[in-house]
Amino acid sequence: MRLAVVGAGAVGRSVAELAGEYGHVVTAFADSTGAVLDADGVDVAGALARKERDGSVGEADPGDALTATYDCLVEATPTTLGDAQPGFGHVEAALETDRHVVLANKGPVAERYDDVMALAAESAGEVRFEATVGGAIPVIATVEGLDPGHVTAARGVLNGTANFVLTRMAAEGLDYEHVLAEAQDLGVAEADPSFDVEGTDAALKCAILANVLHDGGYALADVDVEGITGLPTSALELAAEDGRTVRLIGEVTEDGDVRVGPRLVPESDALAVAGTQNIVQLETTHAGRLNVSGRGAGGPETASAVLADVGRLSER
Amino acid sequence: MRLAVVGAGAVGRSVAELAGEYGHVVTAFADSTGAVLDADGVDVAGALARKERDGSVGEADPGDALTATYDCLVEATPTTLGDAQPGFGHVEAALETDRHVVLANKGPVAERYDDVMALAAESAGEVRFEATVGGAIPVIATVEGLDPGHVTAARGVLNGTANFVLTRMAAEGLDYEHVLAEAQDLGVAEADPSFDVEGTDAALKCAILANVLHDGGYALADVDVEGITGLPTSALELAAEDGRTVRLIGEVTEDGDVRVGPRLVPESDALAVAGTQNIVQLETTHAGRLNVSGRGAGGPETASAVLADVGRLSER
Repeated sequence: MRLAVVGAGAVGRSVAELAGEYGHVVTAFADSTGAVLDADGVDVAGALARKERDGSVGEADPGDALTATYDCLVEATPTTLGDAQPGFGHVEAALETDRHVVLANKGPVAERYDDVMALAAESAGEVRFEATVGGAIPVIATVEGLDPGHVTAARGVLNGTANFVLTRMAAEGLDYEHVLAEAQDLGVAEADPSFDVEGTDAALKCAILANVLHDGGYALADVDVEGITGLPTSALELAAEDGRTVRLIGEVTEDGDVRVGPRLVPESDALAVAGTQNIVQLETTHAGRLNVSGRGAGGPETASAVLADVGRLSER
Repeated sequence: MRLAVVGAGAVGRSVAELAGEYGHVVTAFADSTGAVLDADGVDVAGALARKERDGSVGEADPGDALTATYDCLVEATPTTLGDAQPGFGHVEAALETDRHVVLANKGPVAERYDDVMALAAESAGEVRFEATVGGAIPVIATVEGLDPGHVTAARGVLNGTANFVLTRMAAEGLDYEHVLAEAQDLGVAEADPSFDVEGTDAALKCAILANVLHDGGYALADVDVEGITGLPTSALELAAEDGRTVRLIGEVTEDGDVRVGPRLVPESDALAVAGTQNIVQLETTHAGRLNVSGRGAGGPETASAVLADVGRLSER
């Protein structure tokens, strides 16, 4: 399939680099300031070298990527809240011209799911977004396979940064600020970690899961969110005395409520994944509880979910 | 879709009972001695009551189910080894008349995978077999989503009976014979448990996984199998002193070797699932390690995997 990859951060870059291995060709590649287009296939390595050298993948206008020759838009620009722009506009441009869309950007499906699905309903193109929930973990595909009507609830650890901080605090008895600084040194936490540690990132993923399970209707504002920023080390010590630990759990309840917050879980529980791992538990009507876990972030990991989605699209 | 369900054990029965909830209709339903056919939809509850009363679901010849009106054959007769008959013949009959096949019976895809795929290549019908590996757990779909070429190895706990025995032996310090008798009382182990405790069932599942990962070529005879029958309680006690436990692990290695045997695993490891749980770990080229776990057996659980497969078939 011919791909237009919009966004050249860790995920967009990995998608462009790995596309050939999956039998696809990148015909447009854009970052925020430039783009490179070639209907026969962009020289991805050359484009990334140019970005390294000149700050952009190419000299074309980034908007030209959306009107280029391609079968599927890979939307990998940073997640934005509210109107989810400019990502939403990119999705709109692709669907209005009957092209497929695969999202790594959470904004459009977390904040404007119903708008995206309305556009898809009018388009010959399809929309997929496996990479938006749990990185490499096939959460959405698993829900689809079971059929959303047979999944009654979902919960999980959906943010690797917060989980790394909680794991280290519990294992070493260190305080929050100390572990966060360590995570920043290791590149596990960003310079501004608020999106992760305040629960926003996990909440967006839960809104997306709720939209899939309930056929839309959810946005970030519908999620009851509490982060881990105020959590004292003593809370983890008390939990440990009782064979438990604390995890930042996001959940879509059987009643359709969506919430994110620190919860006590037994140390031996499947939810007590360590470090930057993610896990999702699905409660089903006939198949009991299913657990899916793995790497919830990372360029190649998330790109593999994007490329799995591309593989699931109808041929054009 | 119109389903012919052949086999009325726990899985076939559950498929027939749940089909309507998934939007399908059962037009033929057979056990080993009889069948009931109705192109407008079999009265499943009536057929099961008849089986309870008279020993068979109906008075038609069981073979008539294969020539009845249906879109997809659900093959849920008991797994057999070697020529995998009569299951293989059922698959052949459906594919030769361009109908889809969904298998719960492991025999045809463990023992004669290449023959099944050769028939499918000549047929307008498709073959799926999610339910044959790990019951409710979406193992095959996850491998397909990743693309088999991007999965380098697989391992897991694939037999709930053996895992129950090992879990109880470790937790209670009881000997093998004692725990096995308990498992038989609970219905977790069959009267003749050899298929489970000698590793044959796990080995068949590994042969199927190897066939999917390597595009065929494997059968039970290619699997190096060791069961748990000779395992002394002292081995579990020694392992526990070291923070480890023993699990019956089936694996397809990176080199394409397939083996099943008791292995030491850390108690905190994802592979150390408890009781009748199953887990599969996939090693991938770009997405790291993925874990999928849940109920590996049970009528409704396995039926949900069968019905998920039916949902993945092309419309006819």
